[in-house]
Amino acid sequence: MTHNVAILGASGYTGAELVRLIATHPAMKIVGLSGNSKAGMAMADVFPHLRHLDLPRLTTIDEMSFDDVEIVFCGLPHATSQKIIATLPKSVKVVDMSADFRLRDPAAYEKWYGKPHSAIELQKEAVYGLTEFYREQIKTARLVAGTGCNAATGQYALRPLIAAGVIDLDHIIMDLKAAVSGAGRALKENLLHAELSEGAHAYAVGGTHRHLGEFDQEFSALAGRDVHIQFTPHLIPANRGILATTYVIGDPANIYHTLNATYAQEPFIEVLPMGQHPSIKHIRGSNFCHIGVVADRIPNRTIVIAALDNLTKGSSGQAIQNANLMLGLPETEGLMLAPVFP
Amino acid sequence: MTHNVAILGASGYTGAELVRLIATHPAMKIVGLSGNSKAGMAMADVFPHLRHLDLPRLTTIDEMSFDDVEIVFCGLPHATSQKIIATLPKSVKVVDMSADFRLRDPAAYEKWYGKPHSAIELQKEAVYGLTEFYREQIKTARLVAGTGCNAATGQYALRPLIAAGVIDLDHIIMDLKAAVSGAGRALKENLLHAELSEGAHAYAVGGTHRHLGEFDQEFSALAGRDVHIQFTPHLIPANRGILATTYVIGDPANIYHTLNATYAQEPFIEVLPMGQHPSIKHIRGSNFCHIGVVADRIPNRTIVIAALDNLTKGSSGQAIQNANLMLGLPETEGLMLAPVFP
Amino acid sequence: MTHNVAILGASGYTGAELVRLIATHPAMKIVGLSGNSKAGMAMADVFPHLRHLDLPRLTTIDEMSFDDVEIVFCGLPHATSQKIIATLPKSVKVVDMSADFRLRDPAAYEKWYGKPHSAIELQKEAVYGLTEFYREQIKTARLVAGTGCNAATGQYALRPLIAAGVIDLDHIIMDLKAAVSGAGRALKENLLHAELSEGAHAYAVGGTHRHLGEFDQEFSALAGRDVHIQFTPHLIPANRGILATTYVIGDPANIYHTLNATYAQEPFIEVLPMGQHPSIKHIRGSNFCHIGVVADRIPNRTIVIAALDNLTKGSSGQAIQNANLMLGLPETEGLMLAPVFP
Amino acid sequence: MTHNVAILGASGYTGAELVRLIATHPAMKIVGLSGNSKAGMAMADVFPHLRHLDLPRLTTIDEMSFDDVEIVFCGLPHATSQKIIATLPKSVKVVDMSADFRLRDPAAYEKWYGKPHSAIELQKEAVYGLTEFYREQIKTARLVAGTGCNAATGQYALRPLIAAGVIDLDHIIMDLKAAVSGAGRALKENLLHAELSEGAHAYAVGGTHRHLGEFDQEFSALAGRDVHIQFTPHLIPANRGILATTYVIGDPANIYHTLNATYAQEPFIEVLPMGQHPSIKHIRGSNFCHIGVVADRIPNRTIVIAALDNLTKGSSGQAIQNANLMLGLPETEGLMLAPVFP
Repeated sequence: MTHNVAILGASGYTGAELVRLIATHPAMKIVGLSGNSKAGMAMADVFPHLRHLDLPRLTTIDEMSFDDVEIVFCGLPHATSQKIIATLPKSVKVVDMSADFRLRDPAAYEKWYGKPHSAIELQKEAVYGLTEFYREQIKTARLVAGTGCNAATGQYALRPLIAAGVIDLDHIIMDLKAAVSGAGRALKENLLHAELSEGAHAYAVGGTHRHLGEFDQEFSALAGRDVHIQFTPHLIPANRGILATTYVIGDPANIYHTLNATYAQEPFIEVLPMGQHPSIKHIRGSNFCHIGVVADRIPNRTIVIAALDNLTKGSSGQAIQNANLMLGLPETEGLMLAPVFP
Repeated sequence: MTHNVAILGASGYTGAELVRLIATHPAMKIVGLSGNSKAGMAMADVFPHLRHLDLPRLTTIDEMSFDDVEIVFCGLPHATSQKIIATLPKSVKVVDMSADFRLRDPAAYEKWYGKPHSAIELQKEAVYGLTEFYREQIKTARLVAGTGCNAATGQYALRPLIAAGVIDLDHIIMDLKAAVSGAGRALKENLLHAELSEGAHAYAVGGTHRHLGEFDQEFSALAGRDVHIQFTPHLIPANRGILATTYVIGDPANIYHTLNATYAQEPFIEVLPMGQHPSIKHIRGSNFCHIGVVADRIPNRTIVIAALDNLTKGSSGQAIQNANLMLGLPETEGLMLAPVFP
Repeated sequence: MTHNVAILGASGYTGAELVRLIATHPAMKIVGLSGNSKAGMAMADVFPHLRHLDLPRLTTIDEMSFDDVEIVFCGLPHATSQKIIATLPKSVKVVDMSADFRLRDPAAYEKWYGKPHSAIELQKEAVYGLTEFYREQIKTARLVAGTGCNAATGQYALRPLIAAGVIDLDHIIMDLKAAVSGAGRALKENLLHAELSEGAHAYAVGGTHRHLGEFDQEFSALAGRDVHIQFTPHLIPANRGILATTYVIGDPANIYHTLNATYAQEPFIEVLPMGQHPSIKHIRGSNFCHIGVVADRIPNRTIVIAALDNLTKGSSGQAIQNANLMLGLPETEGLMLAPVFP
Repeated sequence: MTHNVAILGASGYTGAELVRLIATHPAMKIVGLSGNSKAGMAMADVFPHLRHLDLPRLTTIDEMSFDDVEIVFCGLPHATSQKIIATLPKSVKVVDMSADFRLRDPAAYEKWYGKPHSAIELQKEAVYGLTEFYREQIKTARLVAGTGCNAATGQYALRPLIAAGVIDLDHIIMDLKAAVSGAGRALKENLLHAELSEGAHAYAVGGTHRHLGEFDQEFSALAGRDVHIQFTPHLIPANRGILATTYVIGDPANIYHTLNATYAQEPFIEVLPMGQHPSIKHIRGSNFCHIGVVADRIPNRTIVIAALDNLTKGSSGQAIQNANLMLGLPETEGLMLAPVFP
């Protein structure tokens, strides 16, 4: 059986990635694509790499009919997303990829995103979309909030350790290296090839990155107390991939064992042998997350490194994984594509 | 029904690409992997991006049993390839990815590859592996000779034009831009990141590139007379992709019409609308080839540009496409993966 | 003696490159910097790599005084440039880096740039800035028109051959590979890192690139008849550099001899030994141009390849070289910086 | 007055960088170049970007005469370096760029480099080459030991803070991002463009990187007690540059003030305004080091980020800076080249 899906905000990178994944998904069919600024265009003109596919033309959201749509992927900017989702028929399931429904506390939303939430009722029913940890709720959810791509990477490294109480909660430092597609298709000077290639720099230094809202919420809930990590993302000259190097205080063997046990049955999370660590090159274009654990020379200090592709496991692949669950499909359906190397 | 396959020379980039493609191919199963210098290793250690797969360990070719193998992909270097293939059981089908069986004339082989061919009998039964033009012979072949990646790109642009007699055969210039994975995983100074990144240069300038042997053979056969093109490849700082810019003398509309008619029913060859032209970014990681035609300001001069991924459509994807035909499978089986963008 | 200079349009890449070169120029001092959209800012905020220098703050052009300025480098967009230069005091020498004064025929300007020239009188006195070929006129010029960066590269390869009559004028093809800084600091989707990295494609295909106006003008003047070359530029994933691969019909030895003799005494033009050819990696960040000549396997066909850095020899370095002549300084002053490798 | 210099190990990247810098140095002349594996070759054939220079041919070290040589730059591998330097005439000054004379304690050398030191007497007279902190000793030294490139970067960020006692010595974490030229011109699989481009990964994780020997020695000496930092380098897909993100516990304003006061008069060390932080793009090809300080959201936690070019300030530029002092030249002579951007 084929499920009809629509993608809102299909002219961005996460939209293109959804189409790429659905192109070989055996049980989904794209029946609607919106992209307001590019409404009327063929996808082949917006994304020539998709020209071999038989896709609907881009429309405005207003023009789109949801009558035959079972599930909507929403790749709109935050603030816009909550407004549009509030207008969708209740019969339609929604995987939102914006930040709008990630934070359960409206005050936290306002703090990190700078304005009050306008769809608080919807937020209450939203399920946080980190599949491996919210699997059961996602299966029955109508609205799933896709996680931040950095937030996903960091949580894969740290959630099991916080939950198990094997690390010092007051000294967690995450130094993250992010490829540029995470910034979207925005026309900004620092995203130009001439500015980024051969460059590397931190951004949102000092604890100002919005994905900290997710870390704070999730880690504090797990620990039963406030947990605030230090988090410094860096932009590196690559297109896809996030590498999160996490410095924790705790026994390396214990930490390794905890991660290994947590993810033993997970189809997409690979814990490498003790002492090995991942590269973004090895998960590129795939839905896999690689995690490595290394003991530092200083006793009781451990480095945990996680890598995933921000466009796949960090957003559109995660969205498909969640949609599979919401539609009663096998969780891995359409997502076992191997990484593209080199 | 699942067909058992083996890959010889699996520790190079074309080997990794074969494994990537077969990983989601519904009708092939890898039962043997050889890699002499890395025999004994797990593929996950040679190619960590493949660690999620359940693959046989690398062996030497000698250790490998071909009893249950239906088809062998041979990714060995030329000269080695002919020796090994000569020793394989006749019951096994072979897709060779080396240069050893591309040239039908032993003298031409010796001229371009510097030593006599040692398996001339085998060469006689080999079918040239440019699927779209040798489809029927490939279906019944036991031994298919995969084409050179540059040779494939150039032929997609030029074969229909030479066959149709719509261009001047004495003034064909192909200026080709090749990404670095085409050079394989060789440890050479000019392939280092520090040497290639931010660099670009020609190589094999002046008509010395071995793929000219294929152009000469195929174009002359099509034209019924000697055809020698000028061919200058360039190395550019990218990992995957070939862009062949071809300068021909002939009527643009006629040329466009000829290409369009030739490829109208081809699943992997996309002729862009007249005046548009391709980017290697738009076929990356896929088995598609994009072709564009543009009229020059000088009357009767036309630019034909073809783009494909050297590791997919240029070698391993082509190999799977040919294997599908040899096994009686649908030609596109396992190959409809969309390009990875960005 | 130190000469006071001002830079108009200093917030773009050519402006930054001028400042870089003047920073270690022993006889120039920057006394004015304009950048209308960034007026009021410190250069260190626009270009943090220049923060060690003691530079004037950016102003609008209106705010700038030219009383103490001996020479102005004008890095404004075409059309704007001619208007501004017309308002400068006649006592000020000008090196214009826009396209506004390159074409001597107003009709040609209108054809390639889409609107009539508004400062035709100025155009009459402008000297074309290809230093090696207009050296004497530049020494006494008040207004020098910097060449297009592609136009410079191509002319270094072809001018001597056309002047000497050693190639067929009706079959000249130039396939050019350009790094992205040549497109300036413009916020365009195709200049984003995510779109260009791992990509390569042609642009302005078919004889529509504006630098053809310069080729037509200069080559026709040299030949004493109309000369129209085919010219196809390509964008490659690098920041600096132009590689022009030129296909000509003519005797290789003759061609090599002609180039070698022409450039024997030139400080910045290096003709490589016969059969060798250049890489953009080897001239990066410098004012040098490398030229290689290779004979094709087809008799009487020759490939001439030229490489230079579009921001240095192709624009800002050329501008300094011309300014040196206009100010009576040694031509190479401040320009002998070695290329940056790797 | 011109000083004659020789470079041993000139065929590597640090050798090429020395030649680049000396090319425009007004008071140094290269009279000898050794490169054993490439002895007999012209530098233009080893490094075509240097072809405009009039340089001596590469020789073996045995063939080289030191009669007219005032100072030798030694770019040989560690272990080899100590042996060769021991054979040089005592009249020749030496700037060693290997690791051989960085560690004052022979036991530390053996621990980090795996074999005993063979020139312990020489080691006693060697001065550690971090110019800003060993300036007076360097002026009179005969043998200066250039620092590790990572070691230099980290020390610029941390030395003043440790010396001033403004940070917690037991919780210092340095997460470093290094471009690939720091690994030299070695033919290793992980340095290939196809493997590194679009990749990023840590290496020497867990406190095993040899530059920790320098950190331990220097920081412990400053603090008067053992100081062991956590140090995790990462390889990023860029050619030049090191970005060291340092996490310390201490008051941000205090830390900023300490760094600012320390470096106020330094010509090459730029402390950015509080809250700003550097990019490797902004120091590329130059001898500058940029340092930024940002307060974390967690009270008393501070992030200090330092950036420099590993080939310039991190090795060859530092070597020239030291040589200037040893020869009685102005310290900045030949080193004020502005960074190359973009």
